[in-house]
Amino acid sequence: MSVLNFLVSETMKIIAQHVLKVADKVSEDKNVTEFIEKLLSYKNNGKKIFVHGAGRSGLVGRSFAMRLMHLGYHVYVVGETITPRVEEGDMFIAISGSGRTLNVVNAAKVAKEEAKAYVVAITSNPGSPLAEIADLVIVIPGRTKEQALVGDYYIRQITGRHYTRTPLGTLFETSTLVFLDGVIAALMEKLGLTEEHLAKRHANIEG
Amino acid sequence: MSVLNFLVSETMKIIAQHVLKVADKVSEDKNVTEFIEKLLSYKNNGKKIFVHGAGRSGLVGRSFAMRLMHLGYHVYVVGETITPRVEEGDMFIAISGSGRTLNVVNAAKVAKEEAKAYVVAITSNPGSPLAEIADLVIVIPGRTKEQALVGDYYIRQITGRHYTRTPLGTLFETSTLVFLDGVIAALMEKLGLTEEHLAKRHANIEG
Amino acid sequence: MSVLNFLVSETMKIIAQHVLKVADKVSEDKNVTEFIEKLLSYKNNGKKIFVHGAGRSGLVGRSFAMRLMHLGYHVYVVGETITPRVEEGDMFIAISGSGRTLNVVNAAKVAKEEAKAYVVAITSNPGSPLAEIADLVIVIPGRTKEQALVGDYYIRQITGRHYTRTPLGTLFETSTLVFLDGVIAALMEKLGLTEEHLAKRHANIEG
Amino acid sequence: MSVLNFLVSETMKIIAQHVLKVADKVSEDKNVTEFIEKLLSYKNNGKKIFVHGAGRSGLVGRSFAMRLMHLGYHVYVVGETITPRVEEGDMFIAISGSGRTLNVVNAAKVAKEEAKAYVVAITSNPGSPLAEIADLVIVIPGRTKEQALVGDYYIRQITGRHYTRTPLGTLFETSTLVFLDGVIAALMEKLGLTEEHLAKRHANIEG
Repeated sequence: MSVLNFLVSETMKIIAQHVLKVADKVSEDKNVTEFIEKLLSYKNNGKKIFVHGAGRSGLVGRSFAMRLMHLGYHVYVVGETITPRVEEGDMFIAISGSGRTLNVVNAAKVAKEEAKAYVVAITSNPGSPLAEIADLVIVIPGRTKEQALVGDYYIRQITGRHYTRTPLGTLFETSTLVFLDGVIAALMEKLGLTEEHLAKRHANIEG
Repeated sequence: MSVLNFLVSETMKIIAQHVLKVADKVSEDKNVTEFIEKLLSYKNNGKKIFVHGAGRSGLVGRSFAMRLMHLGYHVYVVGETITPRVEEGDMFIAISGSGRTLNVVNAAKVAKEEAKAYVVAITSNPGSPLAEIADLVIVIPGRTKEQALVGDYYIRQITGRHYTRTPLGTLFETSTLVFLDGVIAALMEKLGLTEEHLAKRHANIEG
Repeated sequence: MSVLNFLVSETMKIIAQHVLKVADKVSEDKNVTEFIEKLLSYKNNGKKIFVHGAGRSGLVGRSFAMRLMHLGYHVYVVGETITPRVEEGDMFIAISGSGRTLNVVNAAKVAKEEAKAYVVAITSNPGSPLAEIADLVIVIPGRTKEQALVGDYYIRQITGRHYTRTPLGTLFETSTLVFLDGVIAALMEKLGLTEEHLAKRHANIEG
Repeated sequence: MSVLNFLVSETMKIIAQHVLKVADKVSEDKNVTEFIEKLLSYKNNGKKIFVHGAGRSGLVGRSFAMRLMHLGYHVYVVGETITPRVEEGDMFIAISGSGRTLNVVNAAKVAKEEAKAYVVAITSNPGSPLAEIADLVIVIPGRTKEQALVGDYYIRQITGRHYTRTPLGTLFETSTLVFLDGVIAALMEKLGLTEEHLAKRHANIEG
């Protein structure tokens, strides 16, 4: 095996192990239960769901939004062309690992205070400005101190530089993507929707 | 634990286990070695890299493209505003689980035959039209027959309906995202780039 | 006045004069009447409208789609995250000056033949593959031979190079944008919708 | 002529007449001269140009960014995947009719104060927060009081409702698009670039 293959494989395992830990954590999280129950109540309640995130968190949000559309929700991605006004009673899902991304925090504030939406924060940081604004906070751990000590992220003593296999928001982003795919599976089960239902709504022209 | 939490957690574990299997597979794949060596040769060779995919595969491609930008590559996403012409010797990375997505296959053809680019296909399907066009094929397994039998995807006998926790391209998309984050880790190591280097190029204004 | 200001001002006048000519042309075009009547019939008929175009034509399409959303239409832009399947009876508006843009022509074919949508082509080229597919063709003139002779586009004799103030699709794109804003004004009048109605649907969070 | 055709044609003429007035105005504006001279100095100076706007102003910005790319500039659209960090000496072009769009104003602040970029505001409102931040302000008139009185925008006495053929930012957006196409024509002339040069950089794969 080439060292290049080893590096890829090792990194993939670090990420998968992190996802497994997050899977255990969310299995006991009452806010996760509440999030899914809330989403179930939005099926056919005439309200809209908005998803917002910056950078790679925004891409994770879009992946989730596409599946919600497949399930028949009225869902919109902030910043896309045909995204309408957020109104009272709509759900606004904001994704930010740090909970400090300026635009996302500002947007959540407008959603909460002006539009009177129900705001869900998905973040690693329960003490962040985003979490404070939100009606419901889902904590998805990103890189932790423990991981910094046991291997995938450590400080090289001589140079003082930080080395990591999973730079910046990687662990948060991947775990959030997989978590939200778990939410989709739960919604499918509860709504009695199968893969065929999803496929029927999937775009036949993808641009 | 609520059944809702169980469904989320179970699905996350199915996905993580799949990623672990893919991690083993790619550790022995010579095409993966070649892909990374090729990418290393594109650092400062004056050529461009293009990433293309439809739907959620496109979002995975964007996540990868953002990291390549963080590493200092001249990388573009097909369909974005300032994406220029594909020219001879550029690299064109096409992502499609089925290898049959019309626009992606057509684009890969133009990239290969007209533009004379080096085309990399990332797909579950080594016998697909996309794989045939490509100079290099990376196979990332999606849903397999085995998984259909052992649980996460099975046919309910009575209704004849397909039930799955990981509908449509979910397993391919997530595995490809994590695989490409593994490729980024390998590039960082070989190029001597740390998280600090990446952070320095990361957008400070995210729109 | 600086020559730079002169060049800007002169070019703006060339474009505005072209728009005025197109305004005269569309005032006599029965297909324009039919297009607006068709759009009126899509208000609250339970059908969706899709807009598709590549490059700057795609941006013009998005500008139109945003206004249709403001008017309360179920409108989608091909390639965005939450764009669903095109289905029988939906309207598919394809914008291409040349009428030959590969992806747009392919998409229109799928919309027409597989999805059984009502396809509208907006193009400079009534003899193009796109126009042939369409149920209704709106011709918006772009650069003409006449303009080539009288000034804004001429062949410099010595070099043989083409000089123009309005390169590539500029005249088509701008005229189409203004034409579609004219269509919006007609829809507002007929639907009894004022600026206040539009403002009420306009996004309050723009990402 | 159908009333529908009349409404379209009349609206197109209102917009074209507005563009002609703006063409006169910019012909005497020294800030326009400075803007183009600045842009000329950014050709091959190793600096980046960023374009930012929300909604339809953002689409106008993208149209301009695409042409700058065609001219060989290192230009980026805020919010797209591969947009890097704004750094000292980069140019940041912010487009907002009102000059009050929250995200755009915040972004311009970061560009100016943190990144030390050269900020250009394109706005109808020279007294706006955006204009105050900017190093250079280009004023593009949108709807004016005069227009409100003479016809295209008037208050219907009985209902008190505002009627207009050019709702919300329509006049500003269209005029800005045409103005920026004028800037492109001036840059082409001064840089000695013809349509052929632009076509050579235009995307051959448009997603």
